[in-house]
Amino acid sequence: METSATIAAARSLFGDRLSLNQTIRETHAHGEANAANTLPDAVIFPETTGEISQLLALCHANRTPVTPFGAGTSLEGHVTPVAGGISLDLTRMNRILAVNDADLDGRVEAGVTRKQLNTYLRDHGLFFPVDPGADCTIGGMCATRASGTNAVRYGTIRDNVLGLRAVLADGTIVDTGGRVRKSATGYDLTRLLIGSEGTLGIITEIQLRLYGIPEAIGAAVCGFATERGAIDAVIEIMQTGIPVARIEYADPDQMAVSIAYSKLDLIAQPTLLFEFHGTARGVAEQAAMAEAITAAHGGQSFAFATETEARNKLWQARHDAYWAARAAFPGHGAFSTDTIVPISNLAEAMEQARESVTASGLRACIVGHVGDGNFHVLILYPDTADGAARAWALDREIVGQALDLGGAASGEHGVGIGKREFMMREHGASALAMMRSIKSALDPRGILNPGKMFLD
Amino acid sequence: METSATIAAARSLFGDRLSLNQTIRETHAHGEANAANTLPDAVIFPETTGEISQLLALCHANRTPVTPFGAGTSLEGHVTPVAGGISLDLTRMNRILAVNDADLDGRVEAGVTRKQLNTYLRDHGLFFPVDPGADCTIGGMCATRASGTNAVRYGTIRDNVLGLRAVLADGTIVDTGGRVRKSATGYDLTRLLIGSEGTLGIITEIQLRLYGIPEAIGAAVCGFATERGAIDAVIEIMQTGIPVARIEYADPDQMAVSIAYSKLDLIAQPTLLFEFHGTARGVAEQAAMAEAITAAHGGQSFAFATETEARNKLWQARHDAYWAARAAFPGHGAFSTDTIVPISNLAEAMEQARESVTASGLRACIVGHVGDGNFHVLILYPDTADGAARAWALDREIVGQALDLGGAASGEHGVGIGKREFMMREHGASALAMMRSIKSALDPRGILNPGKMFLD
Ligand SMILES: Cc1cc2nc3c(=O)[nH]c(=O)nc-3n(C[C@H](O)[C@H](O)[C@H](O)COP(=O)(O)OP(=O)(O)OC[C@H]3O[C@@H](n4cnc5c(N)ncnc54)[C@H](O)[C@@H]3O)c2cc1C
Ligand SMILES: Cc1cc2nc3c(=O)[nH]c(=O)nc-3n(C[C@H](O)[C@H](O)[C@H](O)COP(=O)(O)OP(=O)(O)OC[C@H]3O[C@@H](n4cnc5c(N)ncnc54)[C@H](O)[C@@H]3O)c2cc1C
Repeated sequence: METSATIAAARSLFGDRLSLNQTIRETHAHGEANAANTLPDAVIFPETTGEISQLLALCHANRTPVTPFGAGTSLEGHVTPVAGGISLDLTRMNRILAVNDADLDGRVEAGVTRKQLNTYLRDHGLFFPVDPGADCTIGGMCATRASGTNAVRYGTIRDNVLGLRAVLADGTIVDTGGRVRKSATGYDLTRLLIGSEGTLGIITEIQLRLYGIPEAIGAAVCGFATERGAIDAVIEIMQTGIPVARIEYADPDQMAVSIAYSKLDLIAQPTLLFEFHGTARGVAEQAAMAEAITAAHGGQSFAFATETEARNKLWQARHDAYWAARAAFPGHGAFSTDTIVPISNLAEAMEQARESVTASGLRACIVGHVGDGNFHVLILYPDTADGAARAWALDREIVGQALDLGGAASGEHGVGIGKREFMMREHGASALAMMRSIKSALDPRGILNPGKMFLD
Repeated sequence: METSATIAAARSLFGDRLSLNQTIRETHAHGEANAANTLPDAVIFPETTGEISQLLALCHANRTPVTPFGAGTSLEGHVTPVAGGISLDLTRMNRILAVNDADLDGRVEAGVTRKQLNTYLRDHGLFFPVDPGADCTIGGMCATRASGTNAVRYGTIRDNVLGLRAVLADGTIVDTGGRVRKSATGYDLTRLLIGSEGTLGIITEIQLRLYGIPEAIGAAVCGFATERGAIDAVIEIMQTGIPVARIEYADPDQMAVSIAYSKLDLIAQPTLLFEFHGTARGVAEQAAMAEAITAAHGGQSFAFATETEARNKLWQARHDAYWAARAAFPGHGAFSTDTIVPISNLAEAMEQARESVTASGLRACIVGHVGDGNFHVLILYPDTADGAARAWALDREIVGQALDLGGAASGEHGVGIGKREFMMREHGASALAMMRSIKSALDPRGILNPGKMFLD
């Protein structure tokens, strides 16, 4: 790989937007919670799709690896340039290109972050619902097939992208999808790129679905006698078709640390958090229906809040779940699992995970996007020689349990480096071979984010 | 292509489920509203995925074309075996394999039809929302990326499939997706197969999302002074976030024939039909909100009905729109366009289409899944030597208008043979080349439904 030739030629294209600085290379060597084992040879900050096209043609010719970099918040080593080469930082491509109120759609460059977008949309009375816990880029969210607490009602990023502009390995610029709500013409290239983790193309622009900010928003919190009761309530709420916008679970361990951290006047017991969107009457009716169902499953204290402040406090506590756990265990590292199972197996999956935690001697809190069957075990491990390895082993065990229960190795964080070993078990040899043949067809020289998604 | 060798070998596998009968070959030579120009050499009725795998390995070895056949209701020549070979009829694979009430999911074989499925689901209190106008197979719906009147609320088939089992060109059996609601591991093979029109693989089993039958259903109909007023009302209803389950438009021409055919006590003017799903109170509130918005846009007669009979009469009339038009024009052929545009361009697109109809001297009715911006011009052409050609030319013109307005050549019917010529204009050379390279990677010998999707 003639990386030096690529860098020399790229310098004339990018000038001082190509950096060899050690610190910049180090910050581009890892995502959240990973160490930097390998550095990129250079970091490049493109500003247009055309520039990326020129660069990729060059990298393709020279077989130089390219790893796209958004906000670097991914959790499975996605952005680590394991084969060196170029780290392509999209954050200067952060223009909001269009918002169409009548069509409830908009277009952004890949480096726009979700908070930037929602701040911008507020004046339009619109919002974009996909909300991972970090302030990541929309391009990164597409690449990892991200979701968040709103997915149970609004879907994941997959459901909220109408089309993409992307640069393929050889520099070809493609436009996929379009502005229409649905289309029945041709292969779904948009969905192929979503979740491809930078291995099939560099996403540069995204056409998004947007939503009107609901007239009314209500929140509720409800403690339960048992975890099973809480999950059974979730199942019945989904069956009843109550259009909950969010339905999140926190286990007693998580509640204990969150109560301390966020000064909540709640009890450390299995707890569901709700958010309802609709008209004022609709929200009240949804809450009343949810309350009746929770009561039938051992719900003990359904507290409903429509005032912004009370709502925000509750959801801020949910968003701070990670920090609450870290604060409770100073000197510990933290590591989040991300499994998903059919909801009928969710209580079982969480019980098995908790047994494994106990057996491991580590500590953990469980939170979950339970409407989808997705939950995270936040593993807290001591800062000892083998601490991280023990956490890692525990994560492997929990993933195995989810797969045995008909689940997936990741509900939202993605594969990156960390979940590659489960791809065969989850998808089987045939599907994996099908993925690899698509990869070979579209990136025959393997320059796009090598070492990710597939075990070599 | 050694089709005779394939047939000889297949006979030992399928016995009398391999047919050379002329009539059977003729019924498998065309979909709805197409003539049979080429016949398959044989029609095969498999009963298991394993049998299809064996057959495809054979076809692959002998380079024999295979065209999957569901209910044969597709409208763009999809099932016509232009290169001869095998027509693979999936209708014997019509078992409903699983329904999981807690998970709101189910699994069916590809030959199950949507009516069969919904009849079965009724006892579970569940339904499957994707509802094309014909009683097609779920496999065919996946293959064409079908949708229908419920798409505005529940999405298209794309949004309601969790996973697939499929047989690839060389006989490999793949399982894509799974039972989980969302997953962030690996390329989205499920969405790649959805809409691939039998050109990438034979779908044999489908894991579906299901929904609880709503507590209450309400219908409404509202006439408008102008078409623009009706469309503006739709835009505002969508912006307001009223979760309408269906919002359909019929123009005065369609209303005139439907009033006559279905004996409706309505006026032949621009008309919206609504369906609302929810609680009894929620449905009433949705209807009241929709009514207020329609009134602000020249809506003249908002009539709301919750009783099953009145609702059914209204929606039956919508479903019979096609037959009403045909009855009004005896001795005419009928041909449906299927364009979609961003909703802000919908009124313009329908106006342009109507001008083209007038200029053509043909007659037409317009109906639309207007919440999505999708509309059909039902062209009625005289049974003369050039009648069909004039209808065809008019269709081309209307597709061109939609593409100029940022739309797609098909919202739901698909590409087949009829829309191939628009693929370049809609998707551009790069995206089309990307599709072709995927096709070549997965079906290197081009045996799966040759002659469709791409112009040669
Ligand atoms: C505290 C915390 C909470 C989180 N909560 C959630 C959550 O609730 N849900 C969730 O889904 N995730 C969550 N995440 C994970 C993370 O935020 C997501 O994976 C996010 O989508 C990553 O976006 P990013 O911009 O940071 O991408 P990066 O980390 O920069 O990159 C991620 C991957 O995408 C590729 N990539 C980035 N941009 C592009 C592009 N333009 N074109 C092609 N490939 C590209 C990269 O090469 C890499 O493989 C959380 C992370 C943290 C730290
Ligand atoms: C009156 C009428 C109304 C209609 N209304 C609508 C509508 O509202 N919305 C809409 O979307 N469509 C509509 N259609 C079109 C048609 O019903 C759809 O395209 C439907 O999805 C076709 O399903 P089918 O089972 O009939 O498939 P077929 O016509 O048998 O096949 C369609 C295509 O899919 C392929 N195929 C079929 N089964 C499989 C399989 N198991 N694996 C791989 N490929 C397969 C075939 O090779 C072919 O390319 C309508 C048609 C009619 C006649």
